[in-house]
Amino acid sequence: MSKQQEKLRIAVVGLGNVGRAAVESVQSAPDMELAGIVRRNAPSGASEGGVAVVSDVGQLGKVDAALLCGPTRSIPEVAPVYLQRGICTVDSFDIHGEKLWNLRESLDGIAKAGRCSAVVSAGWDPGTDSLVRVLLLAMAPNGITHTNFGPGMSMGHSVAARSKAGVKDALSMTIPVGSSAHRRMVYVALEEGADFAKVKASILEDAYFANDDTRVHHVPDVDALRDVGHGVLMERHGVSGNTHNQHFEFKMRINNPALTGQIMAACARAAVRRLAPGAYTVPEIPPLDLLPGDRAALIRSLV
Amino acid sequence: MSKQQEKLRIAVVGLGNVGRAAVESVQSAPDMELAGIVRRNAPSGASEGGVAVVSDVGQLGKVDAALLCGPTRSIPEVAPVYLQRGICTVDSFDIHGEKLWNLRESLDGIAKAGRCSAVVSAGWDPGTDSLVRVLLLAMAPNGITHTNFGPGMSMGHSVAARSKAGVKDALSMTIPVGSSAHRRMVYVALEEGADFAKVKASILEDAYFANDDTRVHHVPDVDALRDVGHGVLMERHGVSGNTHNQHFEFKMRINNPALTGQIMAACARAAVRRLAPGAYTVPEIPPLDLLPGDRAALIRSLV
Repeated sequence: MSKQQEKLRIAVVGLGNVGRAAVESVQSAPDMELAGIVRRNAPSGASEGGVAVVSDVGQLGKVDAALLCGPTRSIPEVAPVYLQRGICTVDSFDIHGEKLWNLRESLDGIAKAGRCSAVVSAGWDPGTDSLVRVLLLAMAPNGITHTNFGPGMSMGHSVAARSKAGVKDALSMTIPVGSSAHRRMVYVALEEGADFAKVKASILEDAYFANDDTRVHHVPDVDALRDVGHGVLMERHGVSGNTHNQHFEFKMRINNPALTGQIMAACARAAVRRLAPGAYTVPEIPPLDLLPGDRAALIRSLV
Repeated sequence: MSKQQEKLRIAVVGLGNVGRAAVESVQSAPDMELAGIVRRNAPSGASEGGVAVVSDVGQLGKVDAALLCGPTRSIPEVAPVYLQRGICTVDSFDIHGEKLWNLRESLDGIAKAGRCSAVVSAGWDPGTDSLVRVLLLAMAPNGITHTNFGPGMSMGHSVAARSKAGVKDALSMTIPVGSSAHRRMVYVALEEGADFAKVKASILEDAYFANDDTRVHHVPDVDALRDVGHGVLMERHGVSGNTHNQHFEFKMRINNPALTGQIMAACARAAVRRLAPGAYTVPEIPPLDLLPGDRAALIRSLV
């Protein structure tokens, strides 16, 4: 059986919201099988829904790729462990700019040495939104792209609000107000005896919130507000050649961890089957490489 | 000066609406210069706006890529002339399916022999819409994508209507009616003494129109209706992993030849600077390769 026909064996590392979604995407893919789940401190012989749960990927036999679904800050240390063993990695590292570039650079050499590939920041933003930003810039080189997020929960902002003294639980919603500007709606449940005015002040002065219109609300129960639905509206008005008034929109309303897990699984396919050793961001991957199936048939039916 | 820094020398072949737009896109690109224009039967020493117009690309000195802006039916014969000389080609061949695949296959071998690359069907549909279709399928593997065109002029349908006996001029507008269905609004000016009822019947029975709701109108002057604005709304509802109700939209309103010329120019950049010898459709190209500039800076700012 050729490599193109063998099922890819995928490990999912971490079992939070994104990890659980990644498991479902791997199990739904016609060309993949779930080799197992890797969790820190997994007890010997553990399993979940018939799937082995181990603390070391070496216990899973041959693994082609690992979907790294732990926290963003863990990725720079975790990814090399797999790449050094020749296992491709996919992460959804979610900090744009310099940190993203540095991660790509550091994993590039390690992946090449391990003769495998790493896809970094393979979520929806950074990730597929990044690809759309690149595409719109190619289609209309002059102009402005606005990326408007939400309404939806921001994980990073929720964690920042939760870290304040006196906060029992917190949730930060991102509300688009247009032109890439956002309002932050922060809902906090307080610990016994905490002063809401002080909590509110500490949130408003945090760097995560200081540049946005932020409204802090005291609620009895944050869990009652939780919904992992999210979305984006990307808009570009621009110029193709000398022709102005070209207008583009990309919009989606999605379950956030489900989409992230799906994109990670698709990128694992490209990493194992198509990409030369090294590290890649999503706009560096030929989109067709994300799909299973016969390439000639895909080109005939989709292009 | 390295190859990355040298300006790409681009020839534009054909000077219809798309050819003129391609000229503007090349002249607007920071990393390209227009080597000249190739037209059949160009008189010796001809020029247009200070740009050499020649009948043979050999008269233009070094040329890195040729943007083939002649009719779709001419592409299979014209592209090899350039590829055999080692000049990359980009076309916007606009027939989907088997013919597109056959073109890609036939140019693939010729490009490899010429050690250059060919990008086929580099317009917006096929082209960038194809890339979006592929991306949405990767993001939500189960579900339905609808591609709704227009309102806008269809070149192919206009030519088909114009070919009927008794028709002096014709214009066919594509009107989206949802779920990938379209209405055709055909405006015809008649030759002296022609019978509108007969013209209408011959249009309605043409294979181009037979499967759509087609309305034929008699007008005194077709030119007064001409506008090259066009658009698309692509929609997908689908499933990521096991999670239903994922919703995506890609929408644009654009000047049609201007966008086509721009996409062709961007694909020429990928062809010359990045792609290995062979033939490619747009979803087979890493989107980042479409952009000029420093890749590290692009990744830091766009991903």
